[in-house]
Amino acid sequence: MQDREILLSEFAGFCFGVKRAVELAEKKLFESKENSESIYSFGPLIHNPQVVKQLKEKGVKVIENIQEIKNNSSVIIRTHGIHPDIEEELKNKDITIVDVTCPFVRNVQNYAKQLKNEGYFIFLIGEKEHPEIKGILGYCGENSRVINSVQELFGIKIPQSVGVIAQTTQSITNFGEIVAYLSTIAKELKIFNTICWATEKRQQAAYKLAKVVDIMLVIGGKNSGNTRRLYEICKKVNNNTYHIETADELDNSWFTDKVKRVGITAGASTPDWIILEVIDRVKVI
Amino acid sequence: MQDREILLSEFAGFCFGVKRAVELAEKKLFESKENSESIYSFGPLIHNPQVVKQLKEKGVKVIENIQEIKNNSSVIIRTHGIHPDIEEELKNKDITIVDVTCPFVRNVQNYAKQLKNEGYFIFLIGEKEHPEIKGILGYCGENSRVINSVQELFGIKIPQSVGVIAQTTQSITNFGEIVAYLSTIAKELKIFNTICWATEKRQQAAYKLAKVVDIMLVIGGKNSGNTRRLYEICKKVNNNTYHIETADELDNSWFTDKVKRVGITAGASTPDWIILEVIDRVKVI
Repeated sequence: MQDREILLSEFAGFCFGVKRAVELAEKKLFESKENSESIYSFGPLIHNPQVVKQLKEKGVKVIENIQEIKNNSSVIIRTHGIHPDIEEELKNKDITIVDVTCPFVRNVQNYAKQLKNEGYFIFLIGEKEHPEIKGILGYCGENSRVINSVQELFGIKIPQSVGVIAQTTQSITNFGEIVAYLSTIAKELKIFNTICWATEKRQQAAYKLAKVVDIMLVIGGKNSGNTRRLYEICKKVNNNTYHIETADELDNSWFTDKVKRVGITAGASTPDWIILEVIDRVKVI
Repeated sequence: MQDREILLSEFAGFCFGVKRAVELAEKKLFESKENSESIYSFGPLIHNPQVVKQLKEKGVKVIENIQEIKNNSSVIIRTHGIHPDIEEELKNKDITIVDVTCPFVRNVQNYAKQLKNEGYFIFLIGEKEHPEIKGILGYCGENSRVINSVQELFGIKIPQSVGVIAQTTQSITNFGEIVAYLSTIAKELKIFNTICWATEKRQQAAYKLAKVVDIMLVIGGKNSGNTRRLYEICKKVNNNTYHIETADELDNSWFTDKVKRVGITAGASTPDWIILEVIDRVKVI
């Protein structure tokens, strides 16, 4: 056991939208005990396997297909939101909908609708396969394209009137680079900076911390986009950066005698109990 | 006399707006011969002292003050446009107005009006003292600010909803840098890339040419903003760059034996006869 300093990033763990989602799901579980109805979550509620497992044990079944839903049940719409067509289908069923779409994601969906109605071609900055993006894309219409880096724009025809929105957990640097490029080619741009406040603060704090520690631990779901970006940001300034989901993934060999300061951050869907478990485990390595 | 290659940039000299302005002024002069009315130009018609001098000799008097105008005269509104308050005053006078405001500048004025009406705080990219900017600013209203570089934004409060427009002859790189910075702070941006097509082409062609020649000559009025920017762009890639107004400013000492390739470009308000004079003079140095 070494004399090590453990520094937790100023902004780490559950964000507003995730906290709200988990609380609403817990509330629903509490209410359902009385009438023993089935509770479904349309896709995992948040991108943290441990939290999703806990909720499953309490009775929230994750489904990926609308056909799996029984009548007279409750369906929770995940934090990342869903495609408007699926939302419409759900509304037509004899079920109770518990919408825990993050309010910031809902904003992006509304901006997408607005830009579409105003006739802009929409560039949606984010990860093509991420459920948040798949949902928002449903509001963009045909004249839209998902891009993840400025390089993807090189050589493609940029329309005259361009609208830009982003996944709420995008990196602000990436966003600025893409906007700069588009502004030099398109004639008119309408841009909504939809990166959420918490994402920016978390990324900035993680970046600062990673620069001054000997090892940086980024805790969060492997399927969590915002956690992966935290990892990338930290890795750029500290080569000794690791992405772990739980304390079990800690490797003693990372903690050489030279490691005096340990930095820790966590994605927006990582619960406090996992962060505390990691801290406790690091203390005794 | 050396064996030198002279390369004229693909896009050099009179742009569409300047050509149109000079033609309309000449037409007015022709018509006025019949009724011997006075012709005024509100500020120099274009930023080329030689052309303005020629027009003066033909009868176009440059004025800077509305009080100088006699009744029953004609007033030409310069290519750069004027402040809407002055335009209004002119309309109330017993005079004929010949509006040669460049149509691209008129566009920027209209976008300024639109952004103001839509409630955006406007950042106008350009030179504070340039007449084009002074005119456009009149359409922006109180909630606006002229900036010339991204550095001017550091540390100042950026409003939530931002509109961006630019002087038609701005550098596209500068424009992109400013937009990138603003997009990472403001929540909503509406951007009109108002840099005119001719400006972009001229700057790109000059940049390419300056890189492959031994000396680069940039011809145009010392008061011409777009010529000054051409000079800056070329100077960055070729230290042997000179800004001259006429052939008389050529200095034999610039043309050493090592100078085999001479590059030439000219601002949007430089007439062909000045460009040809420079070429002829370089041939015999």
